Amino acid sequence: MDIAIPLFDRFTALDAIGPYEVLSRLPGYRVTFVAEQPGVKTTDNGMLGLVAEKAFAELAHPEIVVVPGGIGTRALMHDATMLGWVRTAHATSQFTCSVCTGSLVLGAAGILDGLEATTHWASMELLGSTGARPTSRRVVEQGKIITGAGVSAGIDMALTLAARVAGDAVAQAIQLGIEYDPQPPFDSGSLEKAPPEAIDLCRRVERAVDDGQPVRI
Amino acid sequence: MDIAIPLFDRFTALDAIGPYEVLSRLPGYRVTFVAEQPGVKTTDNGMLGLVAEKAFAELAHPEIVVVPGGIGTRALMHDATMLGWVRTAHATSQFTCSVCTGSLVLGAAGILDGLEATTHWASMELLGSTGARPTSRRVVEQGKIITGAGVSAGIDMALTLAARVAGDAVAQAIQLGIEYDPQPPFDSGSLEKAPPEAIDLCRRVERAVDDGQPVRI
Repeated sequence: MDIAIPLFDRFTALDAIGPYEVLSRLPGYRVTFVAEQPGVKTTDNGMLGLVAEKAFAELAHPEIVVVPGGIGTRALMHDATMLGWVRTAHATSQFTCSVCTGSLVLGAAGILDGLEATTHWASMELLGSTGARPTSRRVVEQGKIITGAGVSAGIDMALTLAARVAGDAVAQAIQLGIEYDPQPPFDSGSLEKAPPEAIDLCRRVERAVDDGQPVRI
Repeated sequence: MDIAIPLFDRFTALDAIGPYEVLSRLPGYRVTFVAEQPGVKTTDNGMLGLVAEKAFAELAHPEIVVVPGGIGTRALMHDATMLGWVRTAHATSQFTCSVCTGSLVLGAAGILDGLEATTHWASMELLGSTGARPTSRRVVEQGKIITGAGVSAGIDMALTLAARVAGDAVAQAIQLGIEYDPQPPFDSGSLEKAPPEAIDLCRRVERAVDDGQPVRI
């Protein structure tokens, strides 16, 4: 069975690779990176290229879709090809998922109307503009739609999805395989917990990124 | 200043991308993926290619080195080109780091002799054979050498490194930027915590990977 992760210019690498690392270990599934045209897609900071192996048209009906985020999703909200692929895939998918601002794409495709969904903390308002009901929970399940919060939340989202697809024991074995026993040196991963100086630094970066600058503290 | 992440056949993607996502946000640094020959390198499960932009020879003296793991490191332990590049880079680096079985490469290069170091839980014995003193801590600092445990531990390792390089506030801002406020649905990320069924499943996979099979639960 197929898990499709769409790539596009200026995606955020960890949004895609967190779920990939979890879901590629699911028995019976294969992860494929797709794009409008196959080839190398470059991340938000221009420092890395990932290969999209297949065109959207070659994988129109994957069992699972995971849309990553990144500043590139702003353009995708008006991209008829991407939105059409998401709608078509969602019509027959077992699960349709997103990480970070990937939910803006699901929202723009019209599949979050009236549903709770999450995104990066800096994009909640924009998510609301798509018709979704933004919530700051880390993983939000609404039937077959699962959205994850910013960047690293894709790992938690994917473990939740793995449990739905293959049961708790498989998800737990995957968690052990990737040794996901988080011990960050700080407790600064949310607006509620981060110190004011870190929030100021980070908000400045978010504004700069909105203005077309690279993601850099 | 340069942060070099070497790629090679059968690396584990999250080992490389966790640190990349953190370190690419450090002010004044640029992350470059390097390899013996530039081009696409394929992950351990064959499902993804990442582009190595430069050859080892083009980036012989990066300020920071981060060696990712993956089953491909077994071959690297006897690869004179890789080991030579690591030794040369380490001679002038500010920090020399690894994630998961990347520490086997540091060990084989002879730079962990008598030092504490960590790796994936399934490779502790092999790490010991290189002259390092294996420890199961998640992040191990020994002067300018920092090793991280399995796969996802690269995020915690890189945040620790970011704090050393740029101070706590920058590291905390990066943590907030990637919304690293982990909330895994299970507490199964270490041998001490995982239920027996998950450990059995995972050990079976580790043995299969040793025998050349893909990483699949």
